Amino acid sequence: MKLHNFSAGPCILPREVITKASEALLDFDNGLSLLEISHRSKPFVDVMDKASDLALELLGLEGKGYKALFLQGGASTQFLMVALNLLEKRAGYLNTGTWADKAIKEARMYGDVYEVGSSKKEHFNYIPKGYDIPSDYDYFHCTSNNTIFGTQMKSFPKTDIPMVCDMSSDIFSRSLDFSQFDLIYAGAQKNMGPAGTTLVVIKEDILGKVSRKIPSMMDYKIHIDKSSMFNTPPVFAVYTSMLTLEWLKNLGGIKAIEKVNEMKARIMYSEIDLNPLFKGYSAKEDRSNMNATFTLINDDLKETFETMCQEAGIRGLNGHRSVGGYRASMYNALSIDSVKALVEVMSELESQA
Amino acid sequence: MKLHNFSAGPCILPREVITKASEALLDFDNGLSLLEISHRSKPFVDVMDKASDLALELLGLEGKGYKALFLQGGASTQFLMVALNLLEKRAGYLNTGTWADKAIKEARMYGDVYEVGSSKKEHFNYIPKGYDIPSDYDYFHCTSNNTIFGTQMKSFPKTDIPMVCDMSSDIFSRSLDFSQFDLIYAGAQKNMGPAGTTLVVIKEDILGKVSRKIPSMMDYKIHIDKSSMFNTPPVFAVYTSMLTLEWLKNLGGIKAIEKVNEMKARIMYSEIDLNPLFKGYSAKEDRSNMNATFTLINDDLKETFETMCQEAGIRGLNGHRSVGGYRASMYNALSIDSVKALVEVMSELESQA
Ligand SMILES: Cc1ncc(COP(=O)(O)O)c(C=O)c1O
Ligand SMILES: Cc1ncc(COP(=O)(O)O)c(C=O)c1O
Ligand SMILES: [Mg+2]
Ligand SMILES: [Mg+2]
Ligand SMILES: [Mg+2]
Ligand SMILES: [Mg+2]
Repeated sequence: MKLHNFSAGPCILPREVITKASEALLDFDNGLSLLEISHRSKPFVDVMDKASDLALELLGLEGKGYKALFLQGGASTQFLMVALNLLEKRAGYLNTGTWADKAIKEARMYGDVYEVGSSKKEHFNYIPKGYDIPSDYDYFHCTSNNTIFGTQMKSFPKTDIPMVCDMSSDIFSRSLDFSQFDLIYAGAQKNMGPAGTTLVVIKEDILGKVSRKIPSMMDYKIHIDKSSMFNTPPVFAVYTSMLTLEWLKNLGGIKAIEKVNEMKARIMYSEIDLNPLFKGYSAKEDRSNMNATFTLINDDLKETFETMCQEAGIRGLNGHRSVGGYRASMYNALSIDSVKALVEVMSELESQA
Repeated sequence: MKLHNFSAGPCILPREVITKASEALLDFDNGLSLLEISHRSKPFVDVMDKASDLALELLGLEGKGYKALFLQGGASTQFLMVALNLLEKRAGYLNTGTWADKAIKEARMYGDVYEVGSSKKEHFNYIPKGYDIPSDYDYFHCTSNNTIFGTQMKSFPKTDIPMVCDMSSDIFSRSLDFSQFDLIYAGAQKNMGPAGTTLVVIKEDILGKVSRKIPSMMDYKIHIDKSSMFNTPPVFAVYTSMLTLEWLKNLGGIKAIEKVNEMKARIMYSEIDLNPLFKGYSAKEDRSNMNATFTLINDDLKETFETMCQEAGIRGLNGHRSVGGYRASMYNALSIDSVKALVEVMSELESQA
């Protein structure tokens, strides 16, 4: 049976990427496994360089003063590193949900953190708009896509201070002017690869402005100087991310995948809206193209619906424990066919009811 | 041609582990790749639990108040976390080389760090002995095996303060009373698995004694409370580590592999000593069973020796740039045959010369 994997992350990856990664485990460099070679060997240094170059190229940030790093520790470690490297006195954060909330909590250890906007009172079902960002803040931090609540920032504020964005769940999924951001970070495990590495794209000139001493492993400058090889990098996760970025480039890059992602989202949200058995969770204008959150209006249908999904090969549809209901994550590697399969089950449920 | 992989890390892993990891990429959970499933799903939670249990079991630390964690960031992040979590006022470090040196440098940010002993003046070619550890220090830190210089601590000091040990390059290779340590850490990429995860084994009762606030991702207590799942773990590296620990258990555990490791070291060092063309780098009594460092006495033979090695399928023998010469890393997964192949080339060189 063909499986339709709607998991929120770690999540579906392109099958050809998985196949190539599996082959590299058996033989990557003249009989040696990808796992058995020195990270300082030319074959792996080439992988790291290529992954970094591809990231900048796909984002349209080549030759614009940015560096791409592949680090460990997940996006959660970036909550901390951003503040350690950039927060001298005060910073502004947009609170759009759990992840932004955690970023705020970590940053508070290092300076004054102000929530310039928050949708907490509405349980994060929309993106705050029309907020001010004081120009004497060290930086502004936002989360482009809220993976849990299924909201997505459709536009970003204009500001002269550095703009930092957690793009963990929608990087490489849509065209943006990425040069409006000064620091972008994303855990690999959605649109970029397996869990175990985090992409950080930094405009170099924002660094070196805080007075504190930064521990080596937390210091962006050190990682830039050492081209992500200050210590042993997560070889497998970097290699598989490189394969995924190559796959995306061969497909036509962000512009090409964006079209597919828009089509998937349109099919999905049309069904949620038109089908009287379901309703969407988040404000229509802020709906995420990556994570569609919705609920059954009549809970009695839960078991039937979930059994039908299971039988149709649909996996990973359960909503996050803090929201409940369902979440259809439609990352880059998910095909339109999978969305159609889900929508078919939803409309089949309607005709039965 | 059969390859003999003496790489210092990342390094050789058991072939059956690599094969199983490669298969899990294609199909781990009813058609889904290991990379595509939620880390909160039962199949992966089982992997994490099993990896942690196996680590404690192999070290003989079950039921003794220890927890095993699989974290990100490499051993280099532990240099920092150890100090953040344990250093209130002062700590003693034994300086046996580059890695200890780096651990000291990171710890100095958080308190007074004293080198209770150091072999720096002799370019770290021996292990200092007979040093004192003041009983009012917060902890004592040592590095069981120096990967670069090829020295290994054959015994450990008796002390009443917590003992912390970086075992990155010899964990699971020899029998020790592991309960003499209160915190053990090791990057996976030598004896335990692929780069991308770090094992931390902690006696829980040493935690909670510092007054500083610790960032979430740096806090051992948080990782213990969340069973290494505070954030998305490095799924592939943890799974492959679990496979390697299973392999070791099936082989008979540390006691069994220790015998093989001793045999490999005896063969290797005998040749270094008896062959007049080579000499060892480190003090005989402190020689590492994991990393044998040696040089050619006559540099003119360099090209011939290296060509012969290449032709015999010997890989990864070059010494670290800070020592030069050669380094034969003989981790758990390296077979005796590989050591014999190297020794054969060395004696063949002698008969030609
Ligand atoms: C938007 C966002 N930020 C941060 C995180 C945390 O990432 P990690 O688990 O890699 O630390 C997630 C995880 O899903 C996320 O979706
Ligand atoms: C003894 C020792 N400690 C620490 C490290 C650093 O490990 P990582 O690269 O995982 O940070 C190494 C790396 O080889 C090592 O051999
Ligand atoms: Mg700007
Ligand atoms: Mg509806
Ligand atoms: Mg003790
Ligand atoms: Mg000799």
